[in-house]
Amino acid sequence: MSVKDLFQSELKVVNLGLESFQKSLEQCGTKSVHVDWRPPLAIDEASRKILQAKSEEINKANAKAAAKVLAAKPVLIGLDKALDVIPGMKKNLILHAGPPIAWDRMCGPMRGGIMAALMYEGLAKTPKDASKLAASGKIDFSPCHEHSAVGPMAGIISASMPVFVLKNEENGNLGFCTMNEGLGKVLRYGAYGPTVIQKLKWMEVVLYPTLKKAVAKIGKIDLKNIIAQALHMGDEVHNRNRAATSLFYRAIAPAIVRTAPDPETAAQVLEFINGNDHFFLNLSMPASKVSLDAARDIKGSSFVTVMARNGTDFGIQLSGTGSEWFTGPAPVPDALYFPGFTKADANPDIGDSAITETNGLGGFSIAASPAIVQFVGGSASDSLDYTRQMYEITIAENTAYQIPALDFRGSPTGIDARKVVEKGIFPLIDTGVAHKEPGIGQVGAGILSAPAEPFQKAVVGLAKKLGGKS
Amino acid sequence: MSVKDLFQSELKVVNLGLESFQKSLEQCGTKSVHVDWRPPLAIDEASRKILQAKSEEINKANAKAAAKVLAAKPVLIGLDKALDVIPGMKKNLILHAGPPIAWDRMCGPMRGGIMAALMYEGLAKTPKDASKLAASGKIDFSPCHEHSAVGPMAGIISASMPVFVLKNEENGNLGFCTMNEGLGKVLRYGAYGPTVIQKLKWMEVVLYPTLKKAVAKIGKIDLKNIIAQALHMGDEVHNRNRAATSLFYRAIAPAIVRTAPDPETAAQVLEFINGNDHFFLNLSMPASKVSLDAARDIKGSSFVTVMARNGTDFGIQLSGTGSEWFTGPAPVPDALYFPGFTKADANPDIGDSAITETNGLGGFSIAASPAIVQFVGGSASDSLDYTRQMYEITIAENTAYQIPALDFRGSPTGIDARKVVEKGIFPLIDTGVAHKEPGIGQVGAGILSAPAEPFQKAVVGLAKKLGGKS
Repeated sequence: MSVKDLFQSELKVVNLGLESFQKSLEQCGTKSVHVDWRPPLAIDEASRKILQAKSEEINKANAKAAAKVLAAKPVLIGLDKALDVIPGMKKNLILHAGPPIAWDRMCGPMRGGIMAALMYEGLAKTPKDASKLAASGKIDFSPCHEHSAVGPMAGIISASMPVFVLKNEENGNLGFCTMNEGLGKVLRYGAYGPTVIQKLKWMEVVLYPTLKKAVAKIGKIDLKNIIAQALHMGDEVHNRNRAATSLFYRAIAPAIVRTAPDPETAAQVLEFINGNDHFFLNLSMPASKVSLDAARDIKGSSFVTVMARNGTDFGIQLSGTGSEWFTGPAPVPDALYFPGFTKADANPDIGDSAITETNGLGGFSIAASPAIVQFVGGSASDSLDYTRQMYEITIAENTAYQIPALDFRGSPTGIDARKVVEKGIFPLIDTGVAHKEPGIGQVGAGILSAPAEPFQKAVVGLAKKLGGKS
Repeated sequence: MSVKDLFQSELKVVNLGLESFQKSLEQCGTKSVHVDWRPPLAIDEASRKILQAKSEEINKANAKAAAKVLAAKPVLIGLDKALDVIPGMKKNLILHAGPPIAWDRMCGPMRGGIMAALMYEGLAKTPKDASKLAASGKIDFSPCHEHSAVGPMAGIISASMPVFVLKNEENGNLGFCTMNEGLGKVLRYGAYGPTVIQKLKWMEVVLYPTLKKAVAKIGKIDLKNIIAQALHMGDEVHNRNRAATSLFYRAIAPAIVRTAPDPETAAQVLEFINGNDHFFLNLSMPASKVSLDAARDIKGSSFVTVMARNGTDFGIQLSGTGSEWFTGPAPVPDALYFPGFTKADANPDIGDSAITETNGLGGFSIAASPAIVQFVGGSASDSLDYTRQMYEITIAENTAYQIPALDFRGSPTGIDARKVVEKGIFPLIDTGVAHKEPGIGQVGAGILSAPAEPFQKAVVGLAKKLGGKS
């Protein structure tokens, strides 16, 4: 192209970095494409070189991982007691959210949740006894994620708790999650008072057998279909689950009516679900888990299979590094706090619920759910920008989960840890906020970005694995 | 402002008419506001002068009408047989959609619906007998709208049909609508075969008493709240009612379970509602009707209280002209046709369902429901443009009904017939399309604009009323 051609042809500009440059160009009528550019995160030169050299291999592995997740068919197949179905579950084992952590490093709400579980199991009578027992070394702790399970907030699962049993029909793997307790004082936010335990007992004695029989009658409930519809109905199935809860309720109500021991029990179960728009969260989370677990252990893949927080650490796992955790300190969310609370009361980010974002839902699909952004002071167009940015760090667009406001574009699915590091763009996560002290509960809700450190460590970990074999 | 000031101050442009002018200005960085301008519709000079002279008086009357509609509190208070609750209902009376029309001018689907109703009532045994009876002069016909009622498509209500009873709690007025029959071969699209009558009988014998008892147990169901939530969940409550149907189902299911004669009946009723995402249409329509009826008969008001079609004529009423109808030919919708059907099969627009648009919902709130626009080949941004245009011809923004994608702006509510005529912008209506022959049913769905003629006649009618008194 000659200089003359250059001046006669239409000017097109690729804008890197500051978006305001692009806006100026656009005001002058110049066509431009904005590429969000920030300095890459620091990693050692040797790792960077390995990742560069193996770039094609990683891309291929990632495409394979993404294909597994897009093909996943999560269905609810039943309910059972944790002890009877969760691999490795024991009477003295408590599962928790996030990466591994010992009692002495656990945050307040996680300790509160564990104390509630020990009293619920009858292993302790008072909060004080429960705390003592938890610290005694007689109780084992392990991440939900290491047992095909997930849990919101503290993410506590103990042996006799009932759990949903999900199957990824495409891949055959199972997943597990407790039933959602509703709002107010609840175990998952670290509350452990008598009403918390009473409600858990009602869930075990009334809710669980009723739902179990109803699901058995139906055979299975297609959760992929419900999630896909819910994204067309204002949910992102993390912080907003009103539509998905409604659709699940519609699907299961006739079977509940037909199988419940009596109409009053059926009515109470329906009222419990109707009273809690977050009921479906405990289905969208394991649906995401069984979908992502299908993408585990693909050699060389920088595909993120887990993002999870225990209220102290934020941990991730990559497909190509198997069950290895890469962690960093969990951030404190910028949130809208309930009256009487401030950021000073907030516990650092906690819960396995970021599995929804890992699966392209939640914050990644926030454009489907502008009400969440409005709640924290943003606009509908902010929600579109948030989701658009997540396409920058993901591998695929979901074929079933669509964003109406983006002309039904598939949700940004499958985080490439390399892209997070290269672009300095962090996964956006919707979240609830727990009080940092045990026994209090929820103090707010908001959105936040994942921290850099786990992603820096993860790509270095992948480079080591790849480098060692080349 | 001196000429020098003009050139030194920032240039602002008001663009009238062709939008492409504005786009060019914007590309040059010039601030501009697009005002959609088209030539006004033709009305006689005398009427135009009266409307101009009385402009302030009309504005005040319209503000009063709009305030009535915004303050409306539509609730479902029960179900009853049409004969027992609808004012003026008689055994030999059939109510129908749209403005008044005699049998000989009725379209195919309306005739088919009337034939179905006569067989349902036991007044005729065969379609041929029914048609003969309908033409005999022994059966009276009257618009639903003249009896505080509304009906989708053919809009047929006969004496023994069960109807929802709604109340506008703010104003005290009642409204009525049949229960939605579901999809497939149904009376409202003009089908009259044995399965149509069978289903209507099941609705009378099983569905009606079960819902009646359930609503009685609850006392009342707040429809304004359900509609407000549904707009946040992808519905515009005319052609899309999935969310509203879900929320209604959630609200009523426990009461159905507690009051049904047996669990199997309860389950069947729940399955019937669950099987029909349009179930709520027959509640959003009368909810709109009772809201708008509160704004009737305000002297001098050009506020549109009714838009309705009988499949032959499109008719409107204004607050300031009471129960007078202003009509013109009903247009044939541009629609997406079901396989095997084309526009040549389509009946002109039919049904009272445009009462939702008259109330700021349906096509006026289509930005809340981009799936509808996508269905007919448009984009999500088209849906925003459609709703934005409706603000040009409306008086108020709803305080309860909001559009998430427009940053939760209140829906454009209360059509000013003057603005339609002045601006040449026509109300956008979502609609189903019936086959033009009786006995066939639905052939498509789409969106269309209201015709000009009823609005031209209506403002002239208002001018006459105003002129006569000045």
